[in-house]
Amino acid sequence: MSVHTILLDFSMDPARLGDENGQKTVFNQLETVLKEYVPNLLLTADIKVDGGSLKILTGKKGAIVSVRLFDRGLVTVNIEYYKEDCEDPLISFKSAKILESQMKKYIVALNSQALTPIKRCLFGRYYPTSDERLLEYDIDEVLFDEQSPFQKIKIVHSKSLGNMLVLDDLQNISEADLIYTETLMQRGKENYEGKEIVILGGGDGALLYELLKEKPKYVWMLEIDEVVMKACNKYMKSICGDVLEQRKGPNYEIIVEDCMLTVKRFMQEGRKVDYIFGDLTDIPISDADCGELWEFMINILDAAFKILKTTGKFMTHGNGATSIDSLEMYEQVLMKMEPAVVFHKTKAFVPSFLEDWIFYQISFKGNDVE
Amino acid sequence: MSVHTILLDFSMDPARLGDENGQKTVFNQLETVLKEYVPNLLLTADIKVDGGSLKILTGKKGAIVSVRLFDRGLVTVNIEYYKEDCEDPLISFKSAKILESQMKKYIVALNSQALTPIKRCLFGRYYPTSDERLLEYDIDEVLFDEQSPFQKIKIVHSKSLGNMLVLDDLQNISEADLIYTETLMQRGKENYEGKEIVILGGGDGALLYELLKEKPKYVWMLEIDEVVMKACNKYMKSICGDVLEQRKGPNYEIIVEDCMLTVKRFMQEGRKVDYIFGDLTDIPISDADCGELWEFMINILDAAFKILKTTGKFMTHGNGATSIDSLEMYEQVLMKMEPAVVFHKTKAFVPSFLEDWIFYQISFKGNDVE
Repeated sequence: MSVHTILLDFSMDPARLGDENGQKTVFNQLETVLKEYVPNLLLTADIKVDGGSLKILTGKKGAIVSVRLFDRGLVTVNIEYYKEDCEDPLISFKSAKILESQMKKYIVALNSQALTPIKRCLFGRYYPTSDERLLEYDIDEVLFDEQSPFQKIKIVHSKSLGNMLVLDDLQNISEADLIYTETLMQRGKENYEGKEIVILGGGDGALLYELLKEKPKYVWMLEIDEVVMKACNKYMKSICGDVLEQRKGPNYEIIVEDCMLTVKRFMQEGRKVDYIFGDLTDIPISDADCGELWEFMINILDAAFKILKTTGKFMTHGNGATSIDSLEMYEQVLMKMEPAVVFHKTKAFVPSFLEDWIFYQISFKGNDVE
Repeated sequence: MSVHTILLDFSMDPARLGDENGQKTVFNQLETVLKEYVPNLLLTADIKVDGGSLKILTGKKGAIVSVRLFDRGLVTVNIEYYKEDCEDPLISFKSAKILESQMKKYIVALNSQALTPIKRCLFGRYYPTSDERLLEYDIDEVLFDEQSPFQKIKIVHSKSLGNMLVLDDLQNISEADLIYTETLMQRGKENYEGKEIVILGGGDGALLYELLKEKPKYVWMLEIDEVVMKACNKYMKSICGDVLEQRKGPNYEIIVEDCMLTVKRFMQEGRKVDYIFGDLTDIPISDADCGELWEFMINILDAAFKILKTTGKFMTHGNGATSIDSLEMYEQVLMKMEPAVVFHKTKAFVPSFLEDWIFYQISFKGNDVE
């Protein structure tokens, strides 16, 4: 079951919507067309609002049509109704487009658009890009849904991407995202053989799985959330193999606690490694209201560099390529670090994000080989 | 200027929305939270509808909140308001997510989601996938907007894709889509040197431009719509170079008329070519209401094969990889053709479609080399 919401927009000469009469005329024209699409349509409320008016029509089976006329020359039409999964839609996308073009002609609009019907159902199909654009995914099933002490964890199935991990309502990694892990680790450009590596986070297991193929000396994966690993071990085997089956292997260990505890222990022991991966929270999108997140990130970065060999590298994901402000803020943070660091950037299109993503490779100044 | 529509969904135990009192209680809880986000909120209409109820609240600056409570256990909240480009949003996506989680807690919902605010402005940012999912593009400008005798032609600018041709409100090709043309022509797998080629359609010029790099003997491009070529020649130079500057070059000709006329002339003259490209309308998504489109496509296919050498190939784009029914119908058409043909398929992710696309390579049975 789901609720379908159909959104239609029209722009027109503001002079035609400037007074009550004008708005009434346009509304009547729209109503004439609407009546052919929604049976038994009746005007139920007519409300004067700041900057325009709102008319509510109700129709068969509880269908509701809201027509909002804005003095400034815009008209929005929202059609909303309940649909059982087995029922045909009252208005398909094809019908919505015909409805839109008929209405456009009737009211002589300058411009118009019909959005594909929005399906508001029991599981989310909609996720944002890094720059807060709306994307509808072809999700047809929720496989896992649990609130851990740290985050909301979902695994959903997408027809085109396979299973997909969703953390706090953000798409995280899917079975189609090998490129994400390979870009993060710069496969083919870095040599991990015989190296010591720390992963901060990485609970989906994909990075650990891919790194172990490169014959490292030892990998410590520091993940706080047991539930993520449980979910991925069950539903994301194609990206993490068997590495999450047990906490320890011949050349790796998964330590389930706040990663800072292990980092501090390494500091006390004077232990330094060749590579550190930052596979934790994304860089905050903007600084507003995100003070804590930025501080958290800077603290981690500072601590991580203290357990990194002078020839070592810190590898991490950045943000969407269109989130320029956020990327710049991150680079400012890097440029202020002590001791000084230099960084390289790599861009890759991540299938489940449906956008280009930026990855950083950071090393101590004077030690960058490239 | 634009109208922002914020959509929030909640699902809950239907028993709690089963009668008027239950719906009132839930609504009051929602109203309490909403009042913190939308100033001066007042209940303006309370409408009993089939299967539930609808409450309309109006707030400061003409903001409207519609709360729809469905007996079946769903609640939808739509917030709509007018925003000048220079104004801050009344409710950002971040605020919407906080609002959603507060409301979810208050009404003890089972599930909830907040969509990124929908921006309903003078130019469309929203386009569908082949399986009618909604995608919001990072479009910030309309460069060209004209209705030709054949179609509605727009060129818009996307921050991540560059300029993008939009025909009848469907994304067609962008400056980031070289892979589309290269997959269509199977660059590196087919040898066009010294070959005679017909392009059916191809008004954006990209295919002609790329083919000419391969030193063909002669290319006839048969495009009906002069306006598409005018627009692309001005705004899509990076994909079509100078090929649309004039109608004739040393080894090509653009014939501006219904492509069937030239195909018939070739038939009468007994002229046959090595390659034909179908770069016209997409395969219809379903057969419902699309009889004419299918018939058009079959006629073209039939005629094209009559001017193709027995060793020749017909190359065309199919549909989105998730539109399985439509692809199957197309293959059924191919399988019934006389003389018999065989086909190969290639899949490529097309950046501006944000989905995998299927391309067909068709040849006469007994003459497929692979």
